[in-house]
Amino acid sequence: MSVDRIANARLRDRVVSAEAAAALIQPGETVAMSGFTGSGYPKAVPVELARRIEAVHAQGNPFQIKLMTGASTAPELDGALAKADGIAMRMPFQSDPDARNRINEGKLDYIDIHLSHVAQHVWFGFYGEIDTAVIEVSAIREDGSLVPSTSVGNNKTWLDLAKKVIVEVNEWQPAGVDGMHDIYYGTALPPHRKPIPLVNANDRIGDTALRCDPDKIVAVVRTNGPDRNSPFSPIDATSEQIASHLIEFLKHEVKKGRLPPNLLPLQSGVGNIPNAVLAGLAKSGFRDLAAFTEVIQDGMLDLLRDGVLSYASCTGFALSPQANEAFKENIDFYRERIIMRTQEISNHPELVRRLGCIGMNGMIEVDIYGNVNSTHVMGTRIMNGIGGSGDFARNGFLSAFLSPSTAKNGTISAIVPMASHVDHTEHDVSVIVTEQGLADLRGLTPRKRAQVLIDNCAHPDFRPQLQDYFDRASRESYGKHTPHLLPEALSWHQRWLDTGTMMG
Amino acid sequence: MSVDRIANARLRDRVVSAEAAAALIQPGETVAMSGFTGSGYPKAVPVELARRIEAVHAQGNPFQIKLMTGASTAPELDGALAKADGIAMRMPFQSDPDARNRINEGKLDYIDIHLSHVAQHVWFGFYGEIDTAVIEVSAIREDGSLVPSTSVGNNKTWLDLAKKVIVEVNEWQPAGVDGMHDIYYGTALPPHRKPIPLVNANDRIGDTALRCDPDKIVAVVRTNGPDRNSPFSPIDATSEQIASHLIEFLKHEVKKGRLPPNLLPLQSGVGNIPNAVLAGLAKSGFRDLAAFTEVIQDGMLDLLRDGVLSYASCTGFALSPQANEAFKENIDFYRERIIMRTQEISNHPELVRRLGCIGMNGMIEVDIYGNVNSTHVMGTRIMNGIGGSGDFARNGFLSAFLSPSTAKNGTISAIVPMASHVDHTEHDVSVIVTEQGLADLRGLTPRKRAQVLIDNCAHPDFRPQLQDYFDRASRESYGKHTPHLLPEALSWHQRWLDTGTMMG
Repeated sequence: MSVDRIANARLRDRVVSAEAAAALIQPGETVAMSGFTGSGYPKAVPVELARRIEAVHAQGNPFQIKLMTGASTAPELDGALAKADGIAMRMPFQSDPDARNRINEGKLDYIDIHLSHVAQHVWFGFYGEIDTAVIEVSAIREDGSLVPSTSVGNNKTWLDLAKKVIVEVNEWQPAGVDGMHDIYYGTALPPHRKPIPLVNANDRIGDTALRCDPDKIVAVVRTNGPDRNSPFSPIDATSEQIASHLIEFLKHEVKKGRLPPNLLPLQSGVGNIPNAVLAGLAKSGFRDLAAFTEVIQDGMLDLLRDGVLSYASCTGFALSPQANEAFKENIDFYRERIIMRTQEISNHPELVRRLGCIGMNGMIEVDIYGNVNSTHVMGTRIMNGIGGSGDFARNGFLSAFLSPSTAKNGTISAIVPMASHVDHTEHDVSVIVTEQGLADLRGLTPRKRAQVLIDNCAHPDFRPQLQDYFDRASRESYGKHTPHLLPEALSWHQRWLDTGTMMG
Repeated sequence: MSVDRIANARLRDRVVSAEAAAALIQPGETVAMSGFTGSGYPKAVPVELARRIEAVHAQGNPFQIKLMTGASTAPELDGALAKADGIAMRMPFQSDPDARNRINEGKLDYIDIHLSHVAQHVWFGFYGEIDTAVIEVSAIREDGSLVPSTSVGNNKTWLDLAKKVIVEVNEWQPAGVDGMHDIYYGTALPPHRKPIPLVNANDRIGDTALRCDPDKIVAVVRTNGPDRNSPFSPIDATSEQIASHLIEFLKHEVKKGRLPPNLLPLQSGVGNIPNAVLAGLAKSGFRDLAAFTEVIQDGMLDLLRDGVLSYASCTGFALSPQANEAFKENIDFYRERIIMRTQEISNHPELVRRLGCIGMNGMIEVDIYGNVNSTHVMGTRIMNGIGGSGDFARNGFLSAFLSPSTAKNGTISAIVPMASHVDHTEHDVSVIVTEQGLADLRGLTPRKRAQVLIDNCAHPDFRPQLQDYFDRASRESYGKHTPHLLPEALSWHQRWLDTGTMMG
């Protein structure tokens, strides 16, 4: 027996086609959409909006919107709108290849900010008014409240602030997701803020559904389409080595009494290396772990299934098609163990610090002094964005950055003399891990960090060249607290641009 | 009638000379001392310790300690120990010229960390054990509790963790400071942390004195000496212009409804420019302001006296001799309006975010994309350290960085193509102010930030050169999200080293 996912009669009356809903969005609007790492984004309205934009453009007229989301979305949203040249401004995070190209050609304005800052900066009025919110939900309850789907992101803020709201009800999403969410309604603007009453990663402090003034809901669209479900690469030797170094380190910290036997809540970035770390944890002997993170990906579902992880708090999913099937089939099991929150809570500095999260994120490069570049290839070409890495690196118990020691067939060293862009300063980075080994930077001066990074993390092909730079800088630098030879500091990057390799 | 400042009989029996107390510190020890921006540091034991270290060195034997404090201290502490070559490792902040020279010669290990991280990183075990704490207090109560003097800093943590404690009781400090402190004893290690119950900058959440196991107190030393009392420079035209731009901006934000009429709690760095901002606020028409900051300097006392500022929360003072006299004379008035906290509370990310502080800090340079260098001259020579600027820039409502547009007689531009060291990334910087004007970077892409920084903040002598770099980079850069010409990006700094000016 199939139950209508729209249980509120008034809102059922507002069901229209995606095309009709998209027609409610006007040129120049600020549009805030749902979506976080390819989950829970609207599937139909953005595609129709892109079509309409293309048609308007074909007539020689302008049509662009300012677009905000939770984080990255999928081809049907960022891809379609970027291809249509329909985005004047994008924030706070994206990973779409077409959008990325436009950003790096200087044709699309992109603002890359900490995910924990997004909601509050919009509330503060730093981004003007929100004209339209387009939000995917899994169901509308009889009382008109909205059950989120597979991401929460900034949906609470978008619904609170938007002048008009378009809701997509996606029947592809499991109905059993109802009850998994925890929407905190205790936020306020300063000077009226109060402590957030969360002291364990699995505390419930809010509602299971989103509130929305039904008068603002101008259209409801029925959809039935999958989240973006990119499969992960099979775990390779490099990722496995990185995972193994990190897990060995965590065990060492437990032995030294600096971490409890079940660690502290884990935060894990998204991608193949974090997935390998999660797979490594499955075999590590650790038990009763917790996650307080942004995104649940395949490896974390497995840890929950096997009881290695007791529970996980997140704001979205990034699952392969197989993992998604397993998630849907066992939704009752996972609903007991997963709590989905707004991203202002999942990434909140207050909570990340209180819980003492262990942050594990990827990086593009790190310099010998521990400054991490998470965003810009060769200092100028943005890859995705900082996402939540800063929220966890600054405020957690430990911040680990993980990467293979080389990229692009060994032509790029992930350890460089000077980072060509800095997203995480030397003050925020505790541990660097490559397949070569782990550098524990805690309590070290810049010069000592350099030696341990060169010795433990750099690829042997680049080690002599790094050592040579560091030795000469240590002799010749103007100041010797953080020695550099300025004319050479970025020469590795320029050499790669000129010759295709950083090798000197 | 003079009352003995040591009201506990047991501890009165432990009074010894500073020389005898210093003799209790052994080579290789980790010694944690009080002191924050030249207030409340021990005045006698460090001098005697330096003398003893010199004597041991004269005999050809090694003697160094690892030294931790709250922040910077004074010649009698950092100066004396650095001159004696008695410091193997120093953290978390210092500003002594001799120590600075040794650090930049590569002879003194210095670890520059966020002030909000210090206590917790020591509790986490990242810095090993603390052998001795040397803490200045204004009095010892009958019950043995210790009344802090003019700074609290990390004293709670040092007293809790040290194996042995030396207390200096400084009669120069006003007895009336008793009651001004608020020592929070609710901190814990994760996973046992709870919300910090502070919702207004003037909430009291702790004790007025420090607890210490009397069995650990191995020596008590009587002193009678002043805090470091450097006078501020008279306010010059440049500082006045910077202050005026910032205050105009704050008024504009109030008018736009983004800030309440009495603003949000102010944090102010220490120095002549912040002092000018405070002087400007005195004449601004603002009333009922609050401060939640690290340090109270002259201008803030004046604001309190005049009722512009209702109350101020801090962890230490930096007063000129005249201001210090006024403070002592009116201590009863100021005790009602000033709360001194541990620095883990004064700088706590949870509280800075909850209160929505307005951060105002100095800088060395900012690049055209909004990355701020607070610490390293020409990227390599450390000036002081990051201090608490990162705690407020990342977590506050707004983060403003202030500087004259040029330094060293106009040979150095504070706006550069690429920051030679990054302490505050583009993600953490809202507003830049020079005497030329103010750049509001909120909601701008890197390229838009560049144009507004060049137009509003750069000195006219450097503007054409900056514009030329930005224009060429915008055409020729590999990626055009954050355009750079890598071989030129740091050439201004090298030119200054080579020729004495950044002017091309």
